[in-house]
Amino acid sequence: IVELAADGGKHPDTVSTLTGDPLSMPVQLTGERHELDGVRLLAPVIPRSKVVGVGRNYAAHAAELGNEVPTTPLIFLKPNTSVIGPDEPIIYPEPVTRLSYEGELAVVIGRICRDVPAERVKDVIFGYTVANDVTARDLQKSDGQWARAKGYDTFCPLGPWITTHQSIEEMSDAMITTTVDGIQRQHGSTSLMLRGITELVVYISSFTTLLPGDVILTGTPEGVGELLPGHEVSITVDGIGTLTNTVISK
Amino acid sequence: IVELAADGGKHPDTVSTLTGDPLSMPVQLTGERHELDGVRLLAPVIPRSKVVGVGRNYAAHAAELGNEVPTTPLIFLKPNTSVIGPDEPIIYPEPVTRLSYEGELAVVIGRICRDVPAERVKDVIFGYTVANDVTARDLQKSDGQWARAKGYDTFCPLGPWITTHQSIEEMSDAMITTTVDGIQRQHGSTSLMLRGITELVVYISSFTTLLPGDVILTGTPEGVGELLPGHEVSITVDGIGTLTNTVISK
Repeated sequence: IVELAADGGKHPDTVSTLTGDPLSMPVQLTGERHELDGVRLLAPVIPRSKVVGVGRNYAAHAAELGNEVPTTPLIFLKPNTSVIGPDEPIIYPEPVTRLSYEGELAVVIGRICRDVPAERVKDVIFGYTVANDVTARDLQKSDGQWARAKGYDTFCPLGPWITTHQSIEEMSDAMITTTVDGIQRQHGSTSLMLRGITELVVYISSFTTLLPGDVILTGTPEGVGELLPGHEVSITVDGIGTLTNTVISK
Repeated sequence: IVELAADGGKHPDTVSTLTGDPLSMPVQLTGERHELDGVRLLAPVIPRSKVVGVGRNYAAHAAELGNEVPTTPLIFLKPNTSVIGPDEPIIYPEPVTRLSYEGELAVVIGRICRDVPAERVKDVIFGYTVANDVTARDLQKSDGQWARAKGYDTFCPLGPWITTHQSIEEMSDAMITTTVDGIQRQHGSTSLMLRGITELVVYISSFTTLLPGDVILTGTPEGVGELLPGHEVSITVDGIGTLTNTVISK
């Protein structure tokens, strides 16, 4: 985990080394700094329990896949074994015929919590990161339940780091931009979410206990499309950073 | 975790205390023994990653809910936060109007594994336990995705212990019996599974890495029905033991 709170989202060229677990204690800097270009960042968090996804949380994205907007939040789970970090490859699985990116804002939970009231949501959020909710569009349709289509190993890139300095209000109007091989494919603001960050945490915690390090993927704006082996997919959430991964054949 | 291998399924009145993690080292007995009646058993395992469920894996159960038998295994995930142990209460959630039990054989994974070939499945299984795949039947239908309907806290009772002495063949013809307040509701053999233990491990590990302690719920035979606050539900899998929980209002 790289702490970038101090620079207000204008990320420096160097990163600090942390020690200990910032989810359970204050941030501890070792004093070491490294050139960002010279380090390999790992996934900023491997949830000890779950990645909770939200389907069809942007009206234009629901429409582009021919789906209605759901009357209750459409919740699904991705296993923690699907998480990879920045620059790690997304593996195109053999049985899949149509792979898709989904650029998303991810919320990282900082406290064990259940039945969180709206006014306490800010207290249970540790920070924010960028996610790619990689989805096998063909299996999503044919399987019905999405566990396999969204749960393959490598289908949950997270990163490049967790930012901890933004308010819920700031992250509720942040631009998400996805490019594939440099061509812009998604460009939508989190202000277009049908259910915002607060409502999602309230809803999800109404049925399941959230643990420190659990991650909520808040849904993808319109513009989803195909990934093929060799493609480089980059997702930027303004104020956080850019998450880049390349697709490879198994 | 209570080790009962030695008695071949005829469980004694006393249990031994273990130390260490039997998933990562040989079983270590402390030498202490306790009366089974005098101890409170905890869930025998909290998966560090996931509980993988299999829907409609018994033809008669698929039929009783008006569903077709799926052409590929119908896989869903339950979060590890839904796991409880024997005698812990199942909490009937406020928004739910129709709660159901599903008695199942559960397979506990013992090794990190991916793409397990059929002939190696026996090597990655740690043992077996009994599961109740508690399901909010109303939300299962209205939500579409089953994450909430099957993922509420307390919706995954496991126990009373893990048995480690049976072969896949033995567990592939074991009777599952569910009673509610003493009245028999389910009584079906695991031999009626559409996909057996080996096929399920091969299939699930074809898309996701399984970690030691991950649990596979192998599906429920016919006879599912309603649970109400106050009900005591007991599930017995022959050769393992009986898992009992009581339903309470929130």
